[in-house]
Amino acid sequence: MRTIGVVTSGGDAPGMNAAIRAITRIAYSENLQVLGFERGWEGLIESKFRPLTPRSVGGIIQSGGTILHTLRCPQFKRKEMIRKAAETLDLNKVDGLIVIGGNGSFKGALELSRETDTLIVGVPATIDNDVFGTDETIGFDTAVNTAVNEIDKIRDTAISHERTFIVEVMGRKRGFLALTVGITVGAEIILVPEVKFEKEEIFKILKENSAKGKKSSIIVAAEGIGDTRKLAKEIEKNTAAEVRLSILGYAQRGGSPTARSRLLASLFADKAVKLLLKGRGNRIVGLQKGRITSIELEKSCKTEKPLDLKLLRLASVLAT
Amino acid sequence: MRTIGVVTSGGDAPGMNAAIRAITRIAYSENLQVLGFERGWEGLIESKFRPLTPRSVGGIIQSGGTILHTLRCPQFKRKEMIRKAAETLDLNKVDGLIVIGGNGSFKGALELSRETDTLIVGVPATIDNDVFGTDETIGFDTAVNTAVNEIDKIRDTAISHERTFIVEVMGRKRGFLALTVGITVGAEIILVPEVKFEKEEIFKILKENSAKGKKSSIIVAAEGIGDTRKLAKEIEKNTAAEVRLSILGYAQRGGSPTARSRLLASLFADKAVKLLLKGRGNRIVGLQKGRITSIELEKSCKTEKPLDLKLLRLASVLAT
Amino acid sequence: MRTIGVVTSGGDAPGMNAAIRAITRIAYSENLQVLGFERGWEGLIESKFRPLTPRSVGGIIQSGGTILHTLRCPQFKRKEMIRKAAETLDLNKVDGLIVIGGNGSFKGALELSRETDTLIVGVPATIDNDVFGTDETIGFDTAVNTAVNEIDKIRDTAISHERTFIVEVMGRKRGFLALTVGITVGAEIILVPEVKFEKEEIFKILKENSAKGKKSSIIVAAEGIGDTRKLAKEIEKNTAAEVRLSILGYAQRGGSPTARSRLLASLFADKAVKLLLKGRGNRIVGLQKGRITSIELEKSCKTEKPLDLKLLRLASVLAT
Amino acid sequence: MRTIGVVTSGGDAPGMNAAIRAITRIAYSENLQVLGFERGWEGLIESKFRPLTPRSVGGIIQSGGTILHTLRCPQFKRKEMIRKAAETLDLNKVDGLIVIGGNGSFKGALELSRETDTLIVGVPATIDNDVFGTDETIGFDTAVNTAVNEIDKIRDTAISHERTFIVEVMGRKRGFLALTVGITVGAEIILVPEVKFEKEEIFKILKENSAKGKKSSIIVAAEGIGDTRKLAKEIEKNTAAEVRLSILGYAQRGGSPTARSRLLASLFADKAVKLLLKGRGNRIVGLQKGRITSIELEKSCKTEKPLDLKLLRLASVLAT
Repeated sequence: MRTIGVVTSGGDAPGMNAAIRAITRIAYSENLQVLGFERGWEGLIESKFRPLTPRSVGGIIQSGGTILHTLRCPQFKRKEMIRKAAETLDLNKVDGLIVIGGNGSFKGALELSRETDTLIVGVPATIDNDVFGTDETIGFDTAVNTAVNEIDKIRDTAISHERTFIVEVMGRKRGFLALTVGITVGAEIILVPEVKFEKEEIFKILKENSAKGKKSSIIVAAEGIGDTRKLAKEIEKNTAAEVRLSILGYAQRGGSPTARSRLLASLFADKAVKLLLKGRGNRIVGLQKGRITSIELEKSCKTEKPLDLKLLRLASVLAT
Repeated sequence: MRTIGVVTSGGDAPGMNAAIRAITRIAYSENLQVLGFERGWEGLIESKFRPLTPRSVGGIIQSGGTILHTLRCPQFKRKEMIRKAAETLDLNKVDGLIVIGGNGSFKGALELSRETDTLIVGVPATIDNDVFGTDETIGFDTAVNTAVNEIDKIRDTAISHERTFIVEVMGRKRGFLALTVGITVGAEIILVPEVKFEKEEIFKILKENSAKGKKSSIIVAAEGIGDTRKLAKEIEKNTAAEVRLSILGYAQRGGSPTARSRLLASLFADKAVKLLLKGRGNRIVGLQKGRITSIELEKSCKTEKPLDLKLLRLASVLAT
Repeated sequence: MRTIGVVTSGGDAPGMNAAIRAITRIAYSENLQVLGFERGWEGLIESKFRPLTPRSVGGIIQSGGTILHTLRCPQFKRKEMIRKAAETLDLNKVDGLIVIGGNGSFKGALELSRETDTLIVGVPATIDNDVFGTDETIGFDTAVNTAVNEIDKIRDTAISHERTFIVEVMGRKRGFLALTVGITVGAEIILVPEVKFEKEEIFKILKENSAKGKKSSIIVAAEGIGDTRKLAKEIEKNTAAEVRLSILGYAQRGGSPTARSRLLASLFADKAVKLLLKGRGNRIVGLQKGRITSIELEKSCKTEKPLDLKLLRLASVLAT
Repeated sequence: MRTIGVVTSGGDAPGMNAAIRAITRIAYSENLQVLGFERGWEGLIESKFRPLTPRSVGGIIQSGGTILHTLRCPQFKRKEMIRKAAETLDLNKVDGLIVIGGNGSFKGALELSRETDTLIVGVPATIDNDVFGTDETIGFDTAVNTAVNEIDKIRDTAISHERTFIVEVMGRKRGFLALTVGITVGAEIILVPEVKFEKEEIFKILKENSAKGKKSSIIVAAEGIGDTRKLAKEIEKNTAAEVRLSILGYAQRGGSPTARSRLLASLFADKAVKLLLKGRGNRIVGLQKGRITSIELEKSCKTEKPLDLKLLRLASVLAT
């Protein structure tokens, strides 16, 4: 192991830079060289990279985004592109490649691993927290707090106007973000794609709350549940509530990472470099039962991470 | 002058509570009693109010929203409702009424002033900053900073993904919020309802920026300019840019007020109480040329506040 | 189990209110009544309490501090005071008591448990994170992020002025806060009471950094390491560095809790009520290996929680 | 006018980078070249500078600190050093020099102006807001908000523990920062160097507050008033209050500038470049009566800016 590559791929997440910094510095302390591939898989396909050194990754631990840039790269599904990437690794004698990203990136990494001898290790970084093999991904805690801060502000205006707000948060097809955000803002209702909900049930809860003297309500909805605009109208029609919709946008993907996202980035980086040094590839690192660990890349790609339904039930008790 | 009333009306704005607190405490130091009318004009129509004391307004200077709650009250356009409000003031011997709100509220206040002898003073509080007679309204600085913080985060992801973002901010039919936000986030383009723009011009600027090496751009658009969703699609079709839209929502209306919004609230409150003590009503207080002053309520209602177009030109120079 | 009491004791920590809210609402969903004792142990000694209901704990999940107030209560070491507290529990038929606080509070709780049949459960809430039996306490994550945000700002001025900053953070006699803060701000040096350090070593690192081109440095020091003022002077004398000291103050103890502190508060509350319902007392709840669990109160009081020294070593690699 | 220089000097202030960016871009739009001198006056003395271009100042509007770095430079009081700086300007054909800084920097600029034909314009940037000729300096609004956010957090713990806090804020020998911070956090007492205070008066106010039911108090003290540690002890001795001291540190000087600090930076930059283009030097730009204006450099240096004592009186009414 003499040279390792780093690439950030897919959607960006706060803490990716902290991971790049940690990987680079830990690698150097082990006498490895580090190449940073630019713009996701495109950097591997087109052989665009730059050396990363302990100094060149200084001052980025607190920055959102990724200094290596990132792209969604649909063409990376084509065999020939994957082979070009494998060639780049081969030509540049990259012994190990660390892929920082989410599920989509890991699927790409799995394909790539079949065409190359370079050891590949995945570092889970996505605000969606939907990677099997880790309880938490880099960036998740930051996105949660960004959404929570927003909703705390929205609650001011919800209370002043005695309104019901539907707040749509990100999370793609999954409800991890919505669930954690919902429970920590004290949402009256949390809607996630993993659990079917009856609209009648929502109407009922809102009416009961109103009878109890709760004049404003917050509904946190995952983007994956479908058309929140329509839902807002239906609630307005079926209850006495004045309903407003707020779709939290791309700010959830940016911003300075929280301490926890930075720490996770550092710990994952450490584990990833150590795995490569031991000659172990085709794995992703993760946090499991409070410890930094790793599982097979393929298993992560092929298993759906379950949502904690007990937490959802607790949330509904807490919203009484 | 023995008893004054306070009401918050229309959309809420951060700093309304700071104004309520300041009015109450200044009034008490002048041996006045203070009645807080609840839920906007409805509190006047239905005679719902509570006494406010220096202690009961403690601990609210930093809170968003309004402890008096607020409603939009379309029925307040009906003469009989206005008369009921006037009666409430009369029955409760309210010598002066301070109305905290924006343009809509001041129009209501003007109508009300024609039916009552109670002196009425307006305190401008709206995130839209569109009240004639004041350079700045309570809540504007807070909303600007909320939007700026969001867009700083969005820029992280814009840069990482080399994308163009349209960020829609509030402001109703006016561009005050968009202009100040746009210049302070360093937006490449600012779109306000007051200035017609050619789509071709936007395409051109984005292409020039791209040629200059600016791979990501932020367009700040006021909600009043029309359909930003459509605009995003058109830009995507006519340039090489990958465009995303983010609509900043109701968080702009909430949150803890900035120091400036709190200070303005305190200074406006002081002026409003002083005007009442001097027996001067039917005015709104304001900040003009750096000083706290007042103008006639009717003049404020009937004059459109101009947008500073020089600032818009400066913004475009700064975005080079 | 029909009535439970809640008390917050010792230093306050962000998330205590979220815990009070969660305990109350979960208890009510189990048909328990809840009494909130005021001002720490004093409320038990002097029988000052108020009923808590699902409505009376509304709107506090995001508030720092504790609505029950808290005191350090040195007199609670006297037997007669403890007996008075036990009497209060007895007289008011309090079947279970939940004590929200840190080590000091739990020692009091242990004493109290010897004088009463009321079941006692501790919920760890302290920014110091020094409670044995839990990997994390309520408030810790918030305090870490508060300190990190401050130090991110200090780094701006450190870099601009090419200075070395010693930043002293809280943590009493332990280094948990300093360690997590230090690694997540990318501190060049972290000083904790658990690890002896040679001043010569500090001088050497700073000189090496300077030679490497690092013109500014951040040293994060736990308050427990001794006189940082003196240390600053010694560093200035023994290196070419211009040194400034910044002691982060009580803001670390306040502020709106982070999502994680709120979540932990909710999970701990749930576990605490469940323990009482099962008739299990004299325990504290905690987070261990990523799961909510509990250990004996006495064991928690008598065991020192170890600091993760591997993390300290990782920090020094990352600071290269 | 073909080439202008920019230098940041003295203590850094948030918004300096926004000013550098704006100066550079406005200058380029006027076909001027821009040289950035590094590390304050040292850059002029030792002829260390780099060209600044619209692209090289991209992405810094939101950054604290100064990309040009800054030093306090006591040697700049010596004639020969000033002459060396004048020589540098001459050799590099710098037609105009914009000095971004506070009073100390402007005194240096005044000295320099006597040794050179280069036109000099000052742009006031200091968190102390103590520059005569402008109602507000770049960075002031940011520092105020940083302090306010801190104190809002401290109030949580003050209320929970029913304590009195003295919070010392920066401001050197003046009370501008303390006054604005004090009024906007709702401080019970504000202490500034400009107004003598009797300790007995403080004791009396605190006792009265306690009698009124205010169990916690915040005293905001300017660093210029003297030994706050001693004051804390004296208050504790002479009242029943439990007193804590929190000295807000260097974070007040860093952090991302607020919208207002960024806007002021842009407007000042515009005015400064315009003055140079008109051949007017030896002035400082400023905000007066709500408009961007300028006064003579010498007058600014030799006049003490008055503190608004009416605001202090208002603060004491608001604290009732």
